[in-house]
Amino acid sequence: MSKGPIGVFDSGVGGLTVVREIVRLLPQEEILYIGDTARVPWGTRGKQTITAFSHQLANFLVRKKAKVIVVACHTASSVALPSLKKKIKAPLIDVIQPSAQKAVEETENHRIGLIGTPATIESGAWQRAIKKINPAIKVFVNPCPLFVPLVEEGLTRHPVTKIIVKEYIVPLLEKKVDTLILACTHYPLLEGVIKKTAGEVKLVNPGKATALFLKEFLQTHQLKKRVGKGQYQFFFTDLSHQTVKNLERFVGKLKGVKIEEVSLKE
Amino acid sequence: MSKGPIGVFDSGVGGLTVVREIVRLLPQEEILYIGDTARVPWGTRGKQTITAFSHQLANFLVRKKAKVIVVACHTASSVALPSLKKKIKAPLIDVIQPSAQKAVEETENHRIGLIGTPATIESGAWQRAIKKINPAIKVFVNPCPLFVPLVEEGLTRHPVTKIIVKEYIVPLLEKKVDTLILACTHYPLLEGVIKKTAGEVKLVNPGKATALFLKEFLQTHQLKKRVGKGQYQFFFTDLSHQTVKNLERFVGKLKGVKIEEVSLKE
Repeated sequence: MSKGPIGVFDSGVGGLTVVREIVRLLPQEEILYIGDTARVPWGTRGKQTITAFSHQLANFLVRKKAKVIVVACHTASSVALPSLKKKIKAPLIDVIQPSAQKAVEETENHRIGLIGTPATIESGAWQRAIKKINPAIKVFVNPCPLFVPLVEEGLTRHPVTKIIVKEYIVPLLEKKVDTLILACTHYPLLEGVIKKTAGEVKLVNPGKATALFLKEFLQTHQLKKRVGKGQYQFFFTDLSHQTVKNLERFVGKLKGVKIEEVSLKE
Repeated sequence: MSKGPIGVFDSGVGGLTVVREIVRLLPQEEILYIGDTARVPWGTRGKQTITAFSHQLANFLVRKKAKVIVVACHTASSVALPSLKKKIKAPLIDVIQPSAQKAVEETENHRIGLIGTPATIESGAWQRAIKKINPAIKVFVNPCPLFVPLVEEGLTRHPVTKIIVKEYIVPLLEKKVDTLILACTHYPLLEGVIKKTAGEVKLVNPGKATALFLKEFLQTHQLKKRVGKGQYQFFFTDLSHQTVKNLERFVGKLKGVKIEEVSLKE
């Protein structure tokens, strides 16, 4: 079993920031990624559709013999996980649980800030996950609808991004949060700019927390590859010029990469 | 027949800028609008899905006895029109044809600029419509992926919007276009800012061109209401707080407005 690849899926390119962290922590592992770029974004779809799409992607990874599947999509993690756990014959790791745990460990004043897309914030999944660990914690939220388009357009260091970051983050600083969860796979690319505004506030990057959780999971279950070089296959349901550009921007430079367009059976 | 309402549909709220122009030109008419906010955006969906959704919305308007249907959605106009024309038992008016005609009439140097979402630009529908009228015209394009989120977040007068407008428009000015088509229903809300950068370049607002075409169509076919007060019903498949906010922002202040959430049968 320890010879199989790690499977990762997302609705688009965002989950590649999770891959980046997995590569850092587990450089010897083979990773398969599938992003549903033809049907992104999922946030506006109904629960049934999101669940059906999630099963298609997870099954694709099962057919490719993934030893574990990382649900690197916040929408799928908050909506489809119970259904996936019933049907998918591979261990599943989501992005919310490990990061909520990490944020609860980090906060000292029990005031956590949460930024994400409007759909993620409205779903309440993060808030529930945090309250479940410690009901005494106060969660302050601010949806940041412009972050994803700014990141996807490669404007992470653009002056307009600095202005927008301030407008979204300052209201949370005024609530005296001491920990801030970047609850969207795109936001780690803004970590530098956010840090400049957030100052001493501890930032929780769900990609990092998930990769760490994955590493511990593989060790505990004796699924970790001990030797060898990393290999990386990226599948997308729509392979546009923009997707290829974002692949390197999101995941960093890698050796041994294969990219392929696939169509999923309904 | 002249007693029926004008039906307008769009994938979301953008088509409301077309309604705004129809109200200006035809203040005595009753207007029904349906926006598919539960499934927006359509741009990333397949042709078959976009066509199926378009039929659902058009049929909804037919059941409400619309005397004419305005396809106020650029995606539907470029993808679903031939199929709609075969099945829908009401005259159909799209946003592309009247505006392409208007742009061709406006240009003196035969150099037209075209801005829209990446999906609209890539579809090539506008470019084809212009070339069909006059093959000698050169069309220069620039996709503007940040305009829709900036408009939907209400940042039309924000300093960041001025910076982004310049970055998108200047490359087209360098191509010496004398006419610029705002080929997305959201862009008329940026007309003021765009004008400041575009200077002498003539701007074509598809909402205006479509409303004018509609007025002429109603007159020619004796469908125009001659007396009475305007009445306005807005249907949305998802009625969020954001949708209500954008309704007034996009359509302007109106009297005699009803808003309703509806679910469409598949």
